[in-house]
Amino acid sequence: MDNIKPQSIVNGLKDILLYKHGGDIYHNDVSYDFSVNTNPLGLPPIVKKELVESIDMFCRYPDIQCSELCEAVSMQENIPSENLMFANGASEIFKLAVDAIKPHKALVTAPSFSGYSHVLKGAGAGIEYYYLEEGKNFVLDIDILGKIPAGCDMVFLCSPCNPTGRIISKEVFLKVLSYCENKNIYLVADECFLGFLDDYEKLSMKSELSSGYLIIVNAFTKLYAMAGLRLGWCACGNKKLLAKMRQMQPEWSVSVPAQLAGIYALKDKDYIVRTRRLIRQEKPKMAELLENKGIKVFPSDANFLLVKSKINLYKKFLAKHVLIRQCNNFTGLSDGFYRIAIRSAEENRMFNKILMEIV
Amino acid sequence: MDNIKPQSIVNGLKDILLYKHGGDIYHNDVSYDFSVNTNPLGLPPIVKKELVESIDMFCRYPDIQCSELCEAVSMQENIPSENLMFANGASEIFKLAVDAIKPHKALVTAPSFSGYSHVLKGAGAGIEYYYLEEGKNFVLDIDILGKIPAGCDMVFLCSPCNPTGRIISKEVFLKVLSYCENKNIYLVADECFLGFLDDYEKLSMKSELSSGYLIIVNAFTKLYAMAGLRLGWCACGNKKLLAKMRQMQPEWSVSVPAQLAGIYALKDKDYIVRTRRLIRQEKPKMAELLENKGIKVFPSDANFLLVKSKINLYKKFLAKHVLIRQCNNFTGLSDGFYRIAIRSAEENRMFNKILMEIV
Repeated sequence: MDNIKPQSIVNGLKDILLYKHGGDIYHNDVSYDFSVNTNPLGLPPIVKKELVESIDMFCRYPDIQCSELCEAVSMQENIPSENLMFANGASEIFKLAVDAIKPHKALVTAPSFSGYSHVLKGAGAGIEYYYLEEGKNFVLDIDILGKIPAGCDMVFLCSPCNPTGRIISKEVFLKVLSYCENKNIYLVADECFLGFLDDYEKLSMKSELSSGYLIIVNAFTKLYAMAGLRLGWCACGNKKLLAKMRQMQPEWSVSVPAQLAGIYALKDKDYIVRTRRLIRQEKPKMAELLENKGIKVFPSDANFLLVKSKINLYKKFLAKHVLIRQCNNFTGLSDGFYRIAIRSAEENRMFNKILMEIV
Repeated sequence: MDNIKPQSIVNGLKDILLYKHGGDIYHNDVSYDFSVNTNPLGLPPIVKKELVESIDMFCRYPDIQCSELCEAVSMQENIPSENLMFANGASEIFKLAVDAIKPHKALVTAPSFSGYSHVLKGAGAGIEYYYLEEGKNFVLDIDILGKIPAGCDMVFLCSPCNPTGRIISKEVFLKVLSYCENKNIYLVADECFLGFLDDYEKLSMKSELSSGYLIIVNAFTKLYAMAGLRLGWCACGNKKLLAKMRQMQPEWSVSVPAQLAGIYALKDKDYIVRTRRLIRQEKPKMAELLENKGIKVFPSDANFLLVKSKINLYKKFLAKHVLIRQCNNFTGLSDGFYRIAIRSAEENRMFNKILMEIV
């Protein structure tokens, strides 16, 4: 296993593989990757086709305004194009929001995506954590309002949350937004995993873009399996804030392949239908098999499962060339928590076969 | 011409085309693009091949450390890998340097690339200009030392300068660096076009990386014709500064196709030889033909020519579906200045044919 080290081993922080180029080494060591929670369908075929055909355009500067992509997302999401901006992955949106707002103190839920803390630390902002409780199955409820500290000017919420998989109910989200508006606190709503859910339209906070304090972050990364291409977007009703974020963004931040991939991904109307069907069908099966092995599976609204086990599942699976996400480096989680992605039916069958062998 | 508008018309700022997807519209309106000064050879063939073959890897997260790319650049440039960092284009490096240094006041030469001012404005830094003189053919000489204002903590220099095409002699550059060191001023040396020159190794400031005040910025964008893929890099001997820049960078900033393109571009050892030969052969011919038409051609060390003409060359060429760079929106230049890229022998012939028709 010398040739491929999961990044989490290397620096204890990142939710990725230390990507080694050279397919053979890679595939010989890790045959199945259940650590990365991107769409198991892979890039939409129309995107691959378009990228191959457009390769001669990669030498041209990208459209700095992402005009065609913006129109496509505006149509798809029913959000006016002037409320949208695009970036080199959701992580760039988080950075730009923090750079533009310059928060003194931010509230972040724990556990949640480490990227919020990464940009907050980079900007020298203070961070306080609101701990989601295992006893409540990590559901975020309205008692968060009492935990927003004095002097806080930015709150990061993720729905569904990574790595817990739990959504925030619209009712709770609206109350948090209302509270934030009254206290002049900016609320970042990370919806990067929300598109995997049938209830996306109902749950999304995009209905609340009239608020000047709401910043919705989304991405093609997870939902369209294009983590390597980097394409994130932001919806915000506060045009002054959006203008400031744009001013702080390096020029030509969204590459030609990323823009093309986004435009073409949205043309495959059936892709999301197939994605949601797959998750709907596979998730309960995966959960049941894990539970049958005595592994605690937390309820999940997302395309991945947070589980808890006294057995070191990470090591056991890795010995079989299967990678799962060890979660002990998430603030708010300890040893024994693992995140397992829902993959294709075939991959999931293989996972279960190995599960039978090792537990 | 409604379907394709040069970006410079749209916002008077950017050195790019407003990229419209849909090849036919594009190619019917602008047949030849002499406004963009990237490598006329286009992407190295080995890069195209690799990208097509690797398309299934675009769904994976990029290597956050760019390990293989870093090794390749380290070898190529003879710079220790710990002094290198990679980014989503040189423009992200400029932003990160400014974010990390937080300058109060910066000196920028005029004319020069607008990206320096873009990031400085975004960060709220003051900007002063050192005007390069037409009477001196825009050569930057040692009198710049007298023009570095009190309170200045960052200087941006470009060699060769865009759009003048003039290099900064090593002698002058070393004196500026020495002055900056004494005054605790960070010196950004933009070498994005320097690789087009035979004298790259001799002229590059990479020999001075022991200085804690030098930040060299380079990119694959221009030299390897990958403007659409976004791949910039920085060489810096100040490890504390570099660590700060890394901390401020969004995660996974360099995409999978950009990393692959960089790695494979460096494998084509003959590409740079062919590039330099092409520029060496074509530039004097282009200059002579323009001069024969009474157009003032400034001496250029780079892969493009700055010219001056009373005739509106931009409009005349555009009417023939040829785009050149109108330079009146560069601080320090006025109406009548144009930048013309050296392209392939065939494109240059076509340019000259049209030149004969319109002037």
